[in-house]
Amino acid sequence: MKRKLRMGMVGGGKDAFIGAAHRMAARLDGQIELVCGAFSSDAAKSKASGAELFLADDRVYGSYQEMFDKERALPADARMDFVSIVTPNHMHYPVAMAALDAGFPVVCDKPMTLSLEEAKSLADKAKSTGLLFCLTHNYTGYPMVKQAREMVANEQIGKIRRVVVEYPQGWMATLVEESGQKQAAWRTDPSRAGASFTMGDIGSHCANLAEYITGLEIESVCADLTSFVPGRVLDDDGSVLLRMSAGAKGVLWASGIAVGEENALNIRVYGEKGSLEWHQQEPNTLLVHWLDQPIQVLRTSTDFVGASAAANTRLPAGHVEGFIEAFANIYRNFAQTLSQRLDGDRSATGDFPDADDGVRGMAFIEAVVKSSKLNSEWTALK
Amino acid sequence: MKRKLRMGMVGGGKDAFIGAAHRMAARLDGQIELVCGAFSSDAAKSKASGAELFLADDRVYGSYQEMFDKERALPADARMDFVSIVTPNHMHYPVAMAALDAGFPVVCDKPMTLSLEEAKSLADKAKSTGLLFCLTHNYTGYPMVKQAREMVANEQIGKIRRVVVEYPQGWMATLVEESGQKQAAWRTDPSRAGASFTMGDIGSHCANLAEYITGLEIESVCADLTSFVPGRVLDDDGSVLLRMSAGAKGVLWASGIAVGEENALNIRVYGEKGSLEWHQQEPNTLLVHWLDQPIQVLRTSTDFVGASAAANTRLPAGHVEGFIEAFANIYRNFAQTLSQRLDGDRSATGDFPDADDGVRGMAFIEAVVKSSKLNSEWTALK
Amino acid sequence: MKRKLRMGMVGGGKDAFIGAAHRMAARLDGQIELVCGAFSSDAAKSKASGAELFLADDRVYGSYQEMFDKERALPADARMDFVSIVTPNHMHYPVAMAALDAGFPVVCDKPMTLSLEEAKSLADKAKSTGLLFCLTHNYTGYPMVKQAREMVANEQIGKIRRVVVEYPQGWMATLVEESGQKQAAWRTDPSRAGASFTMGDIGSHCANLAEYITGLEIESVCADLTSFVPGRVLDDDGSVLLRMSAGAKGVLWASGIAVGEENALNIRVYGEKGSLEWHQQEPNTLLVHWLDQPIQVLRTSTDFVGASAAANTRLPAGHVEGFIEAFANIYRNFAQTLSQRLDGDRSATGDFPDADDGVRGMAFIEAVVKSSKLNSEWTALK
Amino acid sequence: MKRKLRMGMVGGGKDAFIGAAHRMAARLDGQIELVCGAFSSDAAKSKASGAELFLADDRVYGSYQEMFDKERALPADARMDFVSIVTPNHMHYPVAMAALDAGFPVVCDKPMTLSLEEAKSLADKAKSTGLLFCLTHNYTGYPMVKQAREMVANEQIGKIRRVVVEYPQGWMATLVEESGQKQAAWRTDPSRAGASFTMGDIGSHCANLAEYITGLEIESVCADLTSFVPGRVLDDDGSVLLRMSAGAKGVLWASGIAVGEENALNIRVYGEKGSLEWHQQEPNTLLVHWLDQPIQVLRTSTDFVGASAAANTRLPAGHVEGFIEAFANIYRNFAQTLSQRLDGDRSATGDFPDADDGVRGMAFIEAVVKSSKLNSEWTALK
Repeated sequence: MKRKLRMGMVGGGKDAFIGAAHRMAARLDGQIELVCGAFSSDAAKSKASGAELFLADDRVYGSYQEMFDKERALPADARMDFVSIVTPNHMHYPVAMAALDAGFPVVCDKPMTLSLEEAKSLADKAKSTGLLFCLTHNYTGYPMVKQAREMVANEQIGKIRRVVVEYPQGWMATLVEESGQKQAAWRTDPSRAGASFTMGDIGSHCANLAEYITGLEIESVCADLTSFVPGRVLDDDGSVLLRMSAGAKGVLWASGIAVGEENALNIRVYGEKGSLEWHQQEPNTLLVHWLDQPIQVLRTSTDFVGASAAANTRLPAGHVEGFIEAFANIYRNFAQTLSQRLDGDRSATGDFPDADDGVRGMAFIEAVVKSSKLNSEWTALK
Repeated sequence: MKRKLRMGMVGGGKDAFIGAAHRMAARLDGQIELVCGAFSSDAAKSKASGAELFLADDRVYGSYQEMFDKERALPADARMDFVSIVTPNHMHYPVAMAALDAGFPVVCDKPMTLSLEEAKSLADKAKSTGLLFCLTHNYTGYPMVKQAREMVANEQIGKIRRVVVEYPQGWMATLVEESGQKQAAWRTDPSRAGASFTMGDIGSHCANLAEYITGLEIESVCADLTSFVPGRVLDDDGSVLLRMSAGAKGVLWASGIAVGEENALNIRVYGEKGSLEWHQQEPNTLLVHWLDQPIQVLRTSTDFVGASAAANTRLPAGHVEGFIEAFANIYRNFAQTLSQRLDGDRSATGDFPDADDGVRGMAFIEAVVKSSKLNSEWTALK
Repeated sequence: MKRKLRMGMVGGGKDAFIGAAHRMAARLDGQIELVCGAFSSDAAKSKASGAELFLADDRVYGSYQEMFDKERALPADARMDFVSIVTPNHMHYPVAMAALDAGFPVVCDKPMTLSLEEAKSLADKAKSTGLLFCLTHNYTGYPMVKQAREMVANEQIGKIRRVVVEYPQGWMATLVEESGQKQAAWRTDPSRAGASFTMGDIGSHCANLAEYITGLEIESVCADLTSFVPGRVLDDDGSVLLRMSAGAKGVLWASGIAVGEENALNIRVYGEKGSLEWHQQEPNTLLVHWLDQPIQVLRTSTDFVGASAAANTRLPAGHVEGFIEAFANIYRNFAQTLSQRLDGDRSATGDFPDADDGVRGMAFIEAVVKSSKLNSEWTALK
Repeated sequence: MKRKLRMGMVGGGKDAFIGAAHRMAARLDGQIELVCGAFSSDAAKSKASGAELFLADDRVYGSYQEMFDKERALPADARMDFVSIVTPNHMHYPVAMAALDAGFPVVCDKPMTLSLEEAKSLADKAKSTGLLFCLTHNYTGYPMVKQAREMVANEQIGKIRRVVVEYPQGWMATLVEESGQKQAAWRTDPSRAGASFTMGDIGSHCANLAEYITGLEIESVCADLTSFVPGRVLDDDGSVLLRMSAGAKGVLWASGIAVGEENALNIRVYGEKGSLEWHQQEPNTLLVHWLDQPIQVLRTSTDFVGASAAANTRLPAGHVEGFIEAFANIYRNFAQTLSQRLDGDRSATGDFPDADDGVRGMAFIEAVVKSSKLNSEWTALK
């Protein structure tokens, strides 16, 4: 890269976890600089957040529309190069559409939209504008997830037969949304979160991870969603049987009521010749079982992992790289691609999730919700 | 106990893993003595097996019928007190029926029979004869499984919401039944194994374990069975959604094609106030998550486990008690109860699985097979 | 084996953990039968213990001398074949000497004696009588310990450079010996336990394990023993630097005051080409690191372990074999050797620790105690 | 903080791991901006490194002396606020002395100097100038290390009896310094690394960590250093017995020849009422054993950790924070203190290691080297 890229942000004011995570991820490698933001729909809050981030006051905006307008009016060597959208789910669509319309490449948190229809519309927009669009399915940024994908692609573990992927959390085990927990409040509100809490917030990560590693597609689902906590509108627990392309089968489950679980995203992939096991909470390790040799423990940054893992690692082995580093890999890979585009390579692409992943994610969520309503009838993803 | 109990055995000749396991389990506490056996339907093989076990030649029989007849004819202070049945599945029913008819209490390997109908008939026989019947769902013999059950019963973790139980194995990932692997041969033959390999052999352990720990019943299932290995008749992989009594939900899966997995029976139980996690391959530990305090690691033989775990442990903490010890707990609890019966307490009962568990197991297997045939329609256990 | 071997026992009355452990170990494989015992120096207690074990009353003796006399007088096809000595440490020497004098092969708990001098005398006696002598350094009975030894012997991990072995326990963190804990009482009494608690009871296991796996000898020690708990006479904690043959170095420590530790015997062995790691509390796993390939996890009963591990395993992979099974391997290997001897092969030997290991253990204990008294001066084992 | 702090850097050119680590750590929280550097003693290399970091060409210097001179000449609102020194060990002393003389606060990598004498001289200089000095014993930046320190300080685990701390690595198991491995080359060269490789590079982390957590001081050491790899000048392995203040004892070892180990810094601290266990390679977990309750697993970002851990965490529980985040805590705590100083609070201090820690580290190294030369004689730290 010849210069740092300039980032704007929509959402991510003071108390928002995910905005701070995006900023740390963008910052880590020193290739991206936050230059402006519309951190809240409340202009005063936005200003206060911007000040905390040492932004010039005239680059902190009261609304995303204002930001896109004013940034577009700045000279090319000052205006933001792309926008990062870290609002609650329901705002992803309008903000991203506006950004693309204004000519800004987009990094957008997931799930991409509230509905499959919106997602398709947004993907079409990205395609028609030719602008880069990155969806932060951040768990695919982990080096050992990339190692797993590479091993499957290289046919090291053979044809995939079974996938088991799960994402249990415990923080929604009681009615926290009623006690002022903002993160919980919007996630359990259909108008802001969409048709499902568990599938939108965490199940979609499972689906994305399963498809990313295996290179297969989830074709149909048989699902049972439940709302366990009295007074909650959306589901807080869900189990899904999977039928994937090439005859693979699977189980996917996600839960917010799994008391004591933190972010226990785990995946196991069983092939004809070997199997892979990865745990997000201990992400530098990939366990490999083989038909014909002992269990292996592959570790980040050792000589025994492939090129894609190596390219997404920063430290020598034994120095844990965690959530922020994985998230930063998404930003880094996006930034490198954007930099190539800015340098004139209009077809440059990179290793980060895009609008198509977003469409698949929304198709998954809609199919799961539909199947559950049909008493677990097998339902195809559209 | 006033004297050692005398055990006869049907099945379990030279190369049978499960027969040897039963004998070690029966032997461990010095309260049971193997006195006779019909180890094979081939009389010469039976004799050879008996000789290896240092049995008197006249107590080694060529058939179970012969054994029951001749043992019955022996004086009361010499004849066997009970029979242990460790044949392939299809023989459980006729041998157990004959044993009960001959007046012998029974320890029987699982699954109890080939069909639910047989199971009910056998349970009726056990009831009508009043003879003790023990089904070796041996995994319930582990102290930390009993601890989990006790904690649920004491309402320590609150109302149960979700159960996740799985039993992956990898030994059937190729067509081993064609290469002389006897264990695989009968388990994949419907006439000897029943309607399902995965559910009969390992899935039924999952179901039993889930019910044992939670005290709930699996009410209906939504299942997807698959036969992955070309040339195999029975399923070798299966996933099941569960609906249990009191509104609990769950996921159960079992597989023979999970390359590299050994006997990874694992269970997690999520309640309103806490959750429990247990792994058969590291059985002396029970992980407990709480809503309002840090994760706890409960360990066998410490001061921090309850009476039922303590009663099923033999060693100080830190000295691993494994599969044989857990299996021996089934035998020990059965033997103590039988001893009480022999001493005249005709209503003595104990902590071991019985014919009712066997019926439930067969109902589970049949419902799963039916649901899978109906493209995963929810199917009630009968 | 042509018949079961007949075992007598000295010590191991009702409340003694180690006596019960020996009996379960002896019993597990159905090749050894307990026929007599002098379970306590109190004749009434001995009788009561014998009755609980279903022994004939005339084979339960009031003293070991009586037992040796009367058993010797029995016909050859009735008398005990060997004696197992499970008394507190101070009685090992006189009982074992008497047993050998009476012509009985011996299985003896460790440490072998109270002093190095006694140990040498006992080893000489074993040699001069030509009788089998087995010292139950039971941790060497674990299959994965044998696997480690085999890998070192086969030069798979190269020349050994460093050994780290430790045995922390927490049960002596307070003055339990004053509160009626019998196990603690004799272990902290120099007249019954010897010159060191930590080194006699648990450190000697470390030393034995390190030598067994590496095939090297501990040549000199630099030690620091401490008695932390006020009012305790013997040490309850000790750290030792090791210099071993062939230039290897090491660290060994053992402690009774490591609060919360159970029996956390762990060993790591670092060679020029690879390294090995084993934990007694998860004994079915051996972790192997290599210079030039990924970490491997070797597991009991898989195809990927060698002959010595395989010969000391009873179950398919994934079914934990624990403390009793490992202990039983010592008994089984002893019994097979004794059986060969009884069949006329007078030079038969087997894979179990013997009197020479006992002498080395006592030399280790004495050198550690001496070094500690000399303010950690390097002290050679004699 | 009112503005970002401006950082200069000495050392840390293109291929240097530690320079990149420092930069990511400084960058993570968006409070520190790299504005200048003397990245190499080779001016061209320095320029090239600066360009990669998007620095203005006139702020990239050919030597640290030039940098200090020219930065001092800049206006106060442009010049660097502090300097980060990330050179090989032998340059720490002259660069840090020059920085302090030029009036710049210092962040310096460890070990602080080549000798205890230098360290004392540098600490005196820091004291006399009144400038902030931070030594990057980065492992103390982990939240669960701070949690451990807080629990000890709060007397939750009682008086400390025993500490076991170790830092095995395997990368030096062969003569890598001869094959162009620059990191290895200077670390094994006494003129650049000091009197000991293992103790200077990794053992000093162990000593610092043990003292940080326990609040005790290492008073004397009994050490055995070894150079295993033929052709290597400095030691590559070392074991140390510790005597600490308040009667605590310990074992410390560090090794570069522990084949297959990555950066396995581990510590266990045993007190009278509880014990603590922490592993750098899984840093978000602190295991706590208690005398009178079950084992607890404390996890970063949960409600069950104290204020100091919470203050050094950025993400919700279950999202791993690793090496960079811990390192960033050192920088953040330093930056906050420096900011307070710049705002006029001249006595502001913070939670980061300082020159006194550096002096203690050098005293530890010198005592270990001396003890080892004296055949492991107990040697006091001066």
